[in-house]
Amino acid sequence: MDGAVRSVTGKVLALLGAFTPANPELTLSELARRSGISLATAHRRVAELTAWGALERGADGRYRIGLRLWEVASLAPRGLGLREAAMPFLEDLYEVTHENVQLAVRAGFELVFVERITGRKAVPVLTRVGGRFVLHATGVGLVLLAHAPAEVQEEVLSAPLRAYTGKTITSPARLREVLAAVRRRGYAVSDGQVTIDAVSVAAPIAGRSGEIIAAVSLVVRAGNVPPSVLAPLVQTAARGIGRSLGHQPGARV
Amino acid sequence: MDGAVRSVTGKVLALLGAFTPANPELTLSELARRSGISLATAHRRVAELTAWGALERGADGRYRIGLRLWEVASLAPRGLGLREAAMPFLEDLYEVTHENVQLAVRAGFELVFVERITGRKAVPVLTRVGGRFVLHATGVGLVLLAHAPAEVQEEVLSAPLRAYTGKTITSPARLREVLAAVRRRGYAVSDGQVTIDAVSVAAPIAGRSGEIIAAVSLVVRAGNVPPSVLAPLVQTAARGIGRSLGHQPGARV
Repeated sequence: MDGAVRSVTGKVLALLGAFTPANPELTLSELARRSGISLATAHRRVAELTAWGALERGADGRYRIGLRLWEVASLAPRGLGLREAAMPFLEDLYEVTHENVQLAVRAGFELVFVERITGRKAVPVLTRVGGRFVLHATGVGLVLLAHAPAEVQEEVLSAPLRAYTGKTITSPARLREVLAAVRRRGYAVSDGQVTIDAVSVAAPIAGRSGEIIAAVSLVVRAGNVPPSVLAPLVQTAARGIGRSLGHQPGARV
Repeated sequence: MDGAVRSVTGKVLALLGAFTPANPELTLSELARRSGISLATAHRRVAELTAWGALERGADGRYRIGLRLWEVASLAPRGLGLREAAMPFLEDLYEVTHENVQLAVRAGFELVFVERITGRKAVPVLTRVGGRFVLHATGVGLVLLAHAPAEVQEEVLSAPLRAYTGKTITSPARLREVLAAVRRRGYAVSDGQVTIDAVSVAAPIAGRSGEIIAAVSLVVRAGNVPPSVLAPLVQTAARGIGRSLGHQPGARV
């Protein structure tokens, strides 16, 4: 069935894409089922992927993503490349505040967390490095959405906006105003919009061309510090990261 | 030429494997040449990989590893999975010492750095997250080699041992003694064996089954603190990481 429909490359990618944060370990038959490939074909492809190191087989017979794929993927400029440039500034933010520090990029209509430093005593947050989240709720998400192409904004604004708390913005008109304010002020505040006890302050990071390529945030317990006090700290870190990525300050941000 | 020799899966993996730390951005013809695939075939496969997000094409026409591959690869248990479990303990080590903290796993006859926290004022180190290094020189490498299967040790001991400084161990007999001492004492010291001004103290991390699956180290400027003072700190962190991975203390480490 799958032979005519999908190319071999498509099957290989479907096998890799079968792994998700909720299912990081899969048996061969789960892999076949989740990727829509016959068991016989999956068997052959998985053997090749395992021999190369893209997958690893545990003692329990389940497959996992292999270290070699992780090594190659670590070359992604929007993954670890960005992270390496950002890390000294994220560490500075963490040292000064001992709060949660997050770094995210936009992937389509969602964001992906590229780095996270979690304070031991800081307010708990829902994020995972490599994990995805909606754009309209978090501080980093609001920054990335505010600077996304118009068609991405329209798509997000026209879809239902999920409420995580009573404070999550679910009105497209209100969200439009908030995004305009984010662009005007140069930072975003998400106050209880993801979890009711957390406030996030986020700022945009400009790449070499001046385009916004990422966002950085501090996430603190609600009521601890006014967002206006945290904003300069986060904005300074964002500028530092942009500079180390080759952005010329004084340009668009 | 390549059609008969390599499967399509092999070609896809060769295209991904063409990206290296020294060459993280490649044109289509470089990709074809480095992976030994005809330009026409490379063109088709690269288009499929780009459509899925395994590769990204920059404004300059060069290809890079894509964010989607990085997301999938972040599920590797020996990559970010280990990193997530280890991060709180690595941060504690960094907070207490403000020195370089490293986390590594073995990949065949080499090690791969999974995490690194670099002190701003700490001694410079040669490592990169996702990067490889030999086993016989660094602290983490000596720990991983000391706990590697016998055939891995024999292979490393029988190959030429590259000297990074005058202090690098290049005698197989001497290296055998050092590895025995690492197993006996429970930690490794690399004193000026990679760069002359740096001392590394590393300890083994046990996984759920009691097997050594990773190593953690502190790298400080030579002469600052005696390694025997740093060892308990690193060993405690290693035990904490092992425990959070499900290792039952009192077992093999």
